[in-house]
Amino acid sequence: MSIKLPKGTRDFFPPEQRIQNHIFDTWRQACIKFGYEEYEGPIFEHLELYTDKSGDEIVQQLYYFRDKGKRELSLRPEMTPTLARMVNLKGAALRKPLRWFSIPRLFRYERAQKGRLREFFQLNLDIIGSDSIYAEADLISAIVSMLNDFGLKADDFVIGISSRELLATWFAEIGIADPDKVYPVLDRRAKVSPEVFRDNLNELELNAEQVQLLDDFMLCTSLTEIEKLTQKEASQKALADLKQLFAVLEKAGIAESIQLDLSIVRGLAYYTGIVFEVFDCKRSMRAVAGGGRYDSLTQRLGGSKVPCVGFGMGDVVLADLLEERGLLPSPQAEIDVWLVSFGNDMEKIFSIAAKVRKMGLSCSHILSPTRVGKQLESANIAGARAVIFVDGDRAPEGAFEYKIMETGKQSADSLANIVKEIK
Amino acid sequence: MSIKLPKGTRDFFPPEQRIQNHIFDTWRQACIKFGYEEYEGPIFEHLELYTDKSGDEIVQQLYYFRDKGKRELSLRPEMTPTLARMVNLKGAALRKPLRWFSIPRLFRYERAQKGRLREFFQLNLDIIGSDSIYAEADLISAIVSMLNDFGLKADDFVIGISSRELLATWFAEIGIADPDKVYPVLDRRAKVSPEVFRDNLNELELNAEQVQLLDDFMLCTSLTEIEKLTQKEASQKALADLKQLFAVLEKAGIAESIQLDLSIVRGLAYYTGIVFEVFDCKRSMRAVAGGGRYDSLTQRLGGSKVPCVGFGMGDVVLADLLEERGLLPSPQAEIDVWLVSFGNDMEKIFSIAAKVRKMGLSCSHILSPTRVGKQLESANIAGARAVIFVDGDRAPEGAFEYKIMETGKQSADSLANIVKEIK
Repeated sequence: MSIKLPKGTRDFFPPEQRIQNHIFDTWRQACIKFGYEEYEGPIFEHLELYTDKSGDEIVQQLYYFRDKGKRELSLRPEMTPTLARMVNLKGAALRKPLRWFSIPRLFRYERAQKGRLREFFQLNLDIIGSDSIYAEADLISAIVSMLNDFGLKADDFVIGISSRELLATWFAEIGIADPDKVYPVLDRRAKVSPEVFRDNLNELELNAEQVQLLDDFMLCTSLTEIEKLTQKEASQKALADLKQLFAVLEKAGIAESIQLDLSIVRGLAYYTGIVFEVFDCKRSMRAVAGGGRYDSLTQRLGGSKVPCVGFGMGDVVLADLLEERGLLPSPQAEIDVWLVSFGNDMEKIFSIAAKVRKMGLSCSHILSPTRVGKQLESANIAGARAVIFVDGDRAPEGAFEYKIMETGKQSADSLANIVKEIK
Repeated sequence: MSIKLPKGTRDFFPPEQRIQNHIFDTWRQACIKFGYEEYEGPIFEHLELYTDKSGDEIVQQLYYFRDKGKRELSLRPEMTPTLARMVNLKGAALRKPLRWFSIPRLFRYERAQKGRLREFFQLNLDIIGSDSIYAEADLISAIVSMLNDFGLKADDFVIGISSRELLATWFAEIGIADPDKVYPVLDRRAKVSPEVFRDNLNELELNAEQVQLLDDFMLCTSLTEIEKLTQKEASQKALADLKQLFAVLEKAGIAESIQLDLSIVRGLAYYTGIVFEVFDCKRSMRAVAGGGRYDSLTQRLGGSKVPCVGFGMGDVVLADLLEERGLLPSPQAEIDVWLVSFGNDMEKIFSIAAKVRKMGLSCSHILSPTRVGKQLESANIAGARAVIFVDGDRAPEGAFEYKIMETGKQSADSLANIVKEIK
């Protein structure tokens, strides 16, 4: 009997885990650079946290189960409901605005395919308790900064910015009554055939003129075009917000990474204002990140109304993009020191290893008698920067023979001096 | 409607998450210092990975469910079966011995109580593919080193070392046929009343003399005592191993942190040799860590026989112990720079923030117009090391007023010089 890895999940052997850690570390450092504080929640939540609030698509993908106490639970498909629950729990005791981040593991039962797995990691950044457009600006600045930290340049990615508030005024203008039903259909546009998309619009009972007017609007590439199209009064606030956002992001030096893109609507039900998505410039992959403003979620979960804005960036598409651009780190292991013993003197090895580590270096060695040639081979595989021979007989009393791997330099010195040289 | 945190799980608000990160970072650095490589696996596995192999207690505590594809899955209650599955998957392609670590989240449905939660984190260190006692020595050295890194001293904790191999020879000598049935009962001894313990032994049909002989053996505190008690021939290898282990750990400088303790048997079914547990010296808490040798698990999971030894250290008891000893880090947030604007000039704030971060400092600021007094208050709450005033009018052209919070020093200088001073 051989038991398999569950479908849509991953094993991370050390070379893959080094890549994961590179992604997590870069994410975390970027968040800290922007003053965001890390939080976490449980892997599963009460099922009702998701039903009716996250949107149909996600609810259909839930991993739900009953525990032995008959509770209806679900593995978390996204982090935002947990965040809203936590914010409601502490209420006014949390001094807002909060800038928080998390790197949750998430679970969605969907068809496993390129860029989509059933279990994945997702960086979440959120600003809780600010209705200012500068909250959006802070988040978008952080996205650009962290993608730059990964080595991605302005011509590798673009952040498309849209506004559900603006879209809603247009929907009202062209006679679409319930925008919440239109967003999921528009969001799936790129993922389905033109025929399926047309069928979905028909189900919403939009007429040909409305569809055309929708298209006209969503293909506008500048605020000036939109101003010509819309009744300026109804869309005034949404337009002013977008203007302020683009102006401040220009001052933050990232104008070339952003563009207006009203074809972005996002699939989740709870967005209420600005929404945005990050794509590789060729648009050959799924979105690298996406998010937006959601001002009513805490209220829908039984708390008071708290304006929020946030985004998620998954590890799978990001890693694909970094790999394509040759920006992933080497999967090679690394260690400072490998100890070698000619006489397989295990007690001496353990004694010297303890000393080397106390001096601040990482250090490893054989665990049972092994030929010296094989010990040196192990040093190479472990990526050792230096080898110290614990019982070489050519070193003076109190000194050790050693070899620096990169330069091939061989010499003998006291342990303290060798450690100093390697550091 | 207010939705609650699921029972036995935790929310980690930023102050608690800082403590978690301290634990994870210290664990990770200690493992790297010993040359262990990190791996990870999926949060859930096929149910059959656990049934029959992990021991009854854990199987009764599984969170299992069927996914939408009718697969029987279980949240992982421990990491070792995943590790064994991964080792079997790559087989001979993995150059052994492997020194691997992981920090999995684990799930056990049990009564939530002090030191026990239904969802927790556990550091796992394992050596795969070595039957040498020096593998045990490497792991035990790593435990002592990492507990020292947390600030715990030799008189804070003790590692009790035992041997199932040695216990098995004694069981045979005193006529106990099936040691595998006895281990779980002995393991629960400290957790149940003397009456329940006696009842459990009676269920195993041990007579009074056998129980007495068991006690005599398990209370031995030195190898010399054991040698007097046992038929030396049968127990020769197990005794020699223990002797070698204590000798090499003495050379590694950690003799005062270890002791022979044959009352330790461990609950899990798959241990075959040395077993050990780490306790606080007062033994007022559950075990901080526990592990041992398991040479047959890969084989029982359908692979070839690979000798393994490993241990797990949970975050919950460790954090309790560190808190009791006053060794937890401050939960206070920290940031390098907080920007303050007298004129609430948001565009200037975003422009300077981008510059400060590019110079390598962490930096944050308000998101909407705010009185200066409140901006300074926010700087304090964020734990800012310095405040830079982006539009102070007392600074010369091209310079900025700033304040170093710790010393109260106020001055004005170029951004580059201020950043240099704060770094």
